[in-house]
Amino acid sequence: MTLAAIRLSLREALAASAAQDSAHDVAHADRVWVHARTISHGEGIVPSKVLLCAAYLHDLVSLPKDHPRRAHAATMSAAAAGPVMEALGLTPSEIAQARHAIEAHSWSGPVQPQSLDARILQDADRLEALGAVGVARAFAVAGALGRPLFHPEDPFATKRPLDDDTWALDHFAVKLLKLPETFLTATGRRLAGERADVMRRFLADLAQDLGERPPVW
Amino acid sequence: MTLAAIRLSLREALAASAAQDSAHDVAHADRVWVHARTISHGEGIVPSKVLLCAAYLHDLVSLPKDHPRRAHAATMSAAAAGPVMEALGLTPSEIAQARHAIEAHSWSGPVQPQSLDARILQDADRLEALGAVGVARAFAVAGALGRPLFHPEDPFATKRPLDDDTWALDHFAVKLLKLPETFLTATGRRLAGERADVMRRFLADLAQDLGERPPVW
Repeated sequence: MTLAAIRLSLREALAASAAQDSAHDVAHADRVWVHARTISHGEGIVPSKVLLCAAYLHDLVSLPKDHPRRAHAATMSAAAAGPVMEALGLTPSEIAQARHAIEAHSWSGPVQPQSLDARILQDADRLEALGAVGVARAFAVAGALGRPLFHPEDPFATKRPLDDDTWALDHFAVKLLKLPETFLTATGRRLAGERADVMRRFLADLAQDLGERPPVW
Repeated sequence: MTLAAIRLSLREALAASAAQDSAHDVAHADRVWVHARTISHGEGIVPSKVLLCAAYLHDLVSLPKDHPRRAHAATMSAAAAGPVMEALGLTPSEIAQARHAIEAHSWSGPVQPQSLDARILQDADRLEALGAVGVARAFAVAGALGRPLFHPEDPFATKRPLDDDTWALDHFAVKLLKLPETFLTATGRRLAGERADVMRRFLADLAQDLGERPPVW
């Protein structure tokens, strides 16, 4: 099978899974694959079948951010991805490599990326949390959790501790804008920096709307 | 009672209501009041007690966007606001004026604003749908409804009809960017135009992230 044919089958498998929400849908997987290809080329390698499968199946099991088993979602996705890849004719070695990349892409899990494919997938997925797409996803997640957008008196936390379990906007300072330093490839880090700048511009616009000074985040 | 004291009581009444979600919380009411004051001053009038009450109580009953009685939320809010305003010592005439403004602020209801306060409230509330705040709210609503953020193949609808019941992003073209022409005061219209420009810049950033051309919306 060509990469293009495998990609179509992966999209179908993902679309048929029950794991869809606004932030983890087929479009998200499509973009992660685009980023993974871009980073691969930037790092001087040809994107592999293993990376393609890992990119499409990394959120095959997606749990809400407040779900108690959230930290296990990557492991569950890796397990569920096995039979999908077998059906597509991948070898046991390829399946094991893709499963490692899926397990290691997680934000909260214990597995660290041990291969270039795994580092590329983690970077590709984290890019999605940044930029204008990251803005859209952050607020969609907040809406799904019923979380208020900003602290009414002090949206940018100038006089209170940050608390991103309570306020959606705090998540930009607690996590999102710190992400670029966690990127594992040079290409990924460069793209992450550009997208963090887009986010800072959005935050400056938001501060203007709210009659506040732009944050120093 | 001073306006400041009334405002504190109104915030408490709103915070105690069951109508809170990410897009309609006390912070939203705070901002609508700030906008209402700004527009009043721009139109050369002093912001009134009636406008203050209408600003804080306009979403006292808030129903999800997909709720069958959604079109009646403004009428229900106006009814629920009556006793709150009575308790604050407003006269029957003031209460009737504020109730009219609340009923007429609605996007989907049949009541048209007949007073300057009602026009100001409608403009103040619509400003919240625009700008960076409008971006945050649009995606929070999409997340709450479990609606996907964008069409995976054609996010900006260059080759398909717009469908904002399905895709969050389509709502910018179908409704949000058309809002400035619906504003009823000169000051409101000017502020709306500025905020629509902020939104267009966000959409250009998003197009860049998605590898698409900026929309002509």
